[in-house]
Amino acid sequence: MSNLRSLPVLEQAVVPCCPPLTERPLSAEEAERTAKMFKALGDPVRLRLFSAVASHEGGEACVCDISDVGVSQPTVSHHLKKLREAGLLSSERRGTWVYYRVEPSVLAAMGQLLSAAA
Amino acid sequence: MSNLRSLPVLEQAVVPCCPPLTERPLSAEEAERTAKMFKALGDPVRLRLFSAVASHEGGEACVCDISDVGVSQPTVSHHLKKLREAGLLSSERRGTWVYYRVEPSVLAAMGQLLSAAA
Repeated sequence: MSNLRSLPVLEQAVVPCCPPLTERPLSAEEAERTAKMFKALGDPVRLRLFSAVASHEGGEACVCDISDVGVSQPTVSHHLKKLREAGLLSSERRGTWVYYRVEPSVLAAMGQLLSAAA
Repeated sequence: MSNLRSLPVLEQAVVPCCPPLTERPLSAEEAERTAKMFKALGDPVRLRLFSAVASHEGGEACVCDISDVGVSQPTVSHHLKKLREAGLLSSERRGTWVYYRVEPSVLAAMGQLLSAAA
């Protein structure tokens, strides 16, 4: 490998557990795990950043793509990192920038949690 | 009205706005409004209580129905009130107890937010 910068740094997606919230009460462990994801989206700036990444062309964005949320680039980086830690975004370094991408499986699982039980 | 206790106290549901998060970036106002709901679910105890109400027989529950979350009844009441204030539950007083019910329209709208854009 002569060019380290081209190595993708893929991170494992943390898929939330559990059936729809209307199906049965969550256990303490399930709630602990899932609440982290909701909490990550429970901040207006983070939620805007999440939607900015999720709706960006190609389904991914780097800090360099996001400039209209009214916070500084370090703050954007900080929040994107939090979203990644919560399992909502995965990241891949390409050259200078880290590109963030919404994990479709995580989004689908969260959507299912909030769907009505069959 | 001779029996005030039988008067239902229905509360207006606050339906979250916005298309799927993958469709376009949320505005500041939209994010402010929607983050409140995610934040309310971002606490493990509240999330368990929400799923306890959502999955209870008949789709509603009072504090008297919930005893296995490992917190005191006043704490349960406090969290249910927070969920109601966030627009996730509606409430109705019947006799001694306040019954909480998940707003299906709110749940559906949150699920749609997290669904992939068409």
